[in-house]
Amino acid sequence: VVITPILLSGGGGTRLWPMSTPQRPKQFLALTGAQTMFQMTLNRVSDRSRFAAPMIVAGINHIKHIDAQLAELGIDDARQMLEPCARNTAPAIALAALACAPDAVLLVMPSDHVIADNSAFQAAIDVAAPLANQGWMITFGITPTGPETGYGYIQSGPAIATGVHTVQRFVEKPDATRAAAMIAAGDHAWNGGIFLFRADAYLAALAQFAPEMLAACQHAIDGATYQASQIHPAPAAFAAAPSDSIDYAVMEKSDKVAVVPVDMGWSDIGSWDALSDFNTSSEDARILEIDTTNNLIRTNGICINIVGASDLIVVASGNDLLIIPRGQSQEVKRVVEALKARGG
Amino acid sequence: VVITPILLSGGGGTRLWPMSTPQRPKQFLALTGAQTMFQMTLNRVSDRSRFAAPMIVAGINHIKHIDAQLAELGIDDARQMLEPCARNTAPAIALAALACAPDAVLLVMPSDHVIADNSAFQAAIDVAAPLANQGWMITFGITPTGPETGYGYIQSGPAIATGVHTVQRFVEKPDATRAAAMIAAGDHAWNGGIFLFRADAYLAALAQFAPEMLAACQHAIDGATYQASQIHPAPAAFAAAPSDSIDYAVMEKSDKVAVVPVDMGWSDIGSWDALSDFNTSSEDARILEIDTTNNLIRTNGICINIVGASDLIVVASGNDLLIIPRGQSQEVKRVVEALKARGG
Repeated sequence: VVITPILLSGGGGTRLWPMSTPQRPKQFLALTGAQTMFQMTLNRVSDRSRFAAPMIVAGINHIKHIDAQLAELGIDDARQMLEPCARNTAPAIALAALACAPDAVLLVMPSDHVIADNSAFQAAIDVAAPLANQGWMITFGITPTGPETGYGYIQSGPAIATGVHTVQRFVEKPDATRAAAMIAAGDHAWNGGIFLFRADAYLAALAQFAPEMLAACQHAIDGATYQASQIHPAPAAFAAAPSDSIDYAVMEKSDKVAVVPVDMGWSDIGSWDALSDFNTSSEDARILEIDTTNNLIRTNGICINIVGASDLIVVASGNDLLIIPRGQSQEVKRVVEALKARGG
Repeated sequence: VVITPILLSGGGGTRLWPMSTPQRPKQFLALTGAQTMFQMTLNRVSDRSRFAAPMIVAGINHIKHIDAQLAELGIDDARQMLEPCARNTAPAIALAALACAPDAVLLVMPSDHVIADNSAFQAAIDVAAPLANQGWMITFGITPTGPETGYGYIQSGPAIATGVHTVQRFVEKPDATRAAAMIAAGDHAWNGGIFLFRADAYLAALAQFAPEMLAACQHAIDGATYQASQIHPAPAAFAAAPSDSIDYAVMEKSDKVAVVPVDMGWSDIGSWDALSDFNTSSEDARILEIDTTNNLIRTNGICINIVGASDLIVVASGNDLLIIPRGQSQEVKRVVEALKARGG
């Protein structure tokens, strides 16, 4: 089975502000190494004996980042599905599915996640592919490393093949007590938003559970314009699609959903604190620390000099500086909201 | 007695780095209000019925700041004694004294100090002036507000006139125990580096205690060139002067020294922590704080956004950022030294 990678490039660019912004969200930043997370996602599906040319579903305002970063990798066969507006993941994936052959097996991936163990990821794809080809919609269940409250969970049911389980239930982001209980139970995985299914299976599920969304997306593709590798869905038609996630719209409703648990060093780098686990701590001549410990410091411009202050996240990007204690990086949203309220 | 103000504009620009720099030391910054400390010093001696035109002794590389800030105040009668190199206060004052009439009474003042109560300062000058005119070298003793270890102290001896005392002894920067003992004794004042004496009295003391320095300064003035209000001492001659402070070279050695204690809201703003006492806390649209207390934040460019981090000094100037805990601002010198060692 040759698999068609579908890269989802959404995200509001707030959680890693000020480095990430709506104009340049985190998938287009080289935060964990020399390459951006968008590029690292492409690299995982670069073997053309396993994977067909990728399709990138992205906001139209990010074209220049996409073109530049594809060019850096020498990838010239990617197609781009350019959303005229944001309608969450279910419509985005519908656009991609409608533009592929019905029997194409789609590997749907956010483009802003880290997967440290690509071999484990590829093995999980191999486990999932035959069932996807039979019409199952597979979600990859990330083996939890702790009782995180920031993720949804998936409870595995009985196995339907080696390494593949039915889904017992999807669980919304839990509180700490429930998260701990799920970790203790051992049969729960994080919902990482990575999926494998045939295009026609997804579209059939949409027809059943979200027919209005499917119709809007079909109209958008029917009215699409094409420019070289770019597909531009009809704006008004796509704007009519209800905004919803694939989990709510389809995965939590369909009976033909299975989970492949996988332990692959995954992270969605959902905060500055999360990024620190992947901090390669490269020397930066613009950073000077004296008598400090446990700071996470990033700059793309100014020189940051710290004496005697520890346990801080300090991020300078362009004209903006963020200072926030380690462990509180989710509070960055309060800055973004306050600046928005100021009109800044 | 008409008094000639002598403004000393030295200082390395390290203690309030990164705002102050060798290129623009702190007297040329508006850190405590709309005007710079240099301008506020000039304003204290702007009454031409009491004070003659001021003389500014400064490094030649600061001409542009001096000219601009004099122009802002509309002062057009100031003379500038432009040092070709730095030789500490004793030679700097010698240049000024040699350029004034022998019987001129000189009010020697650093130009980077804050004096909140100018009336008290003027009253102290009135007390000191008759004795200065009789040949005494008067130092103003700042009434201490606490057992500071960062200043030298002056112990008062018997009164020689109302509000004027002989000097019992000068005390180097003490440790905390000795500082506390001096405060408890009640007859000790801080040495603020502000003096009143006749030019000839100072030059006579130099002839007695530092004849080599006086000779070098005399040669520098003999070979000086004059450009409008600027005096340029001969560089090689002045470079030959030994570098020393007025306290070491003269005040601690002469018997004709007296002290006028004065309580005038004085500060040398010797650190970011010291500045915070004079923080006018003006609103700055470039600063956003959420859930913070007791931060001192200054920026002349980038926007500083802080959530949940307190008791910090955060200063952004140009391309440099400093972060240091409150109470530790003397440690800024370690940053400056480290950057110097890096060649930055």
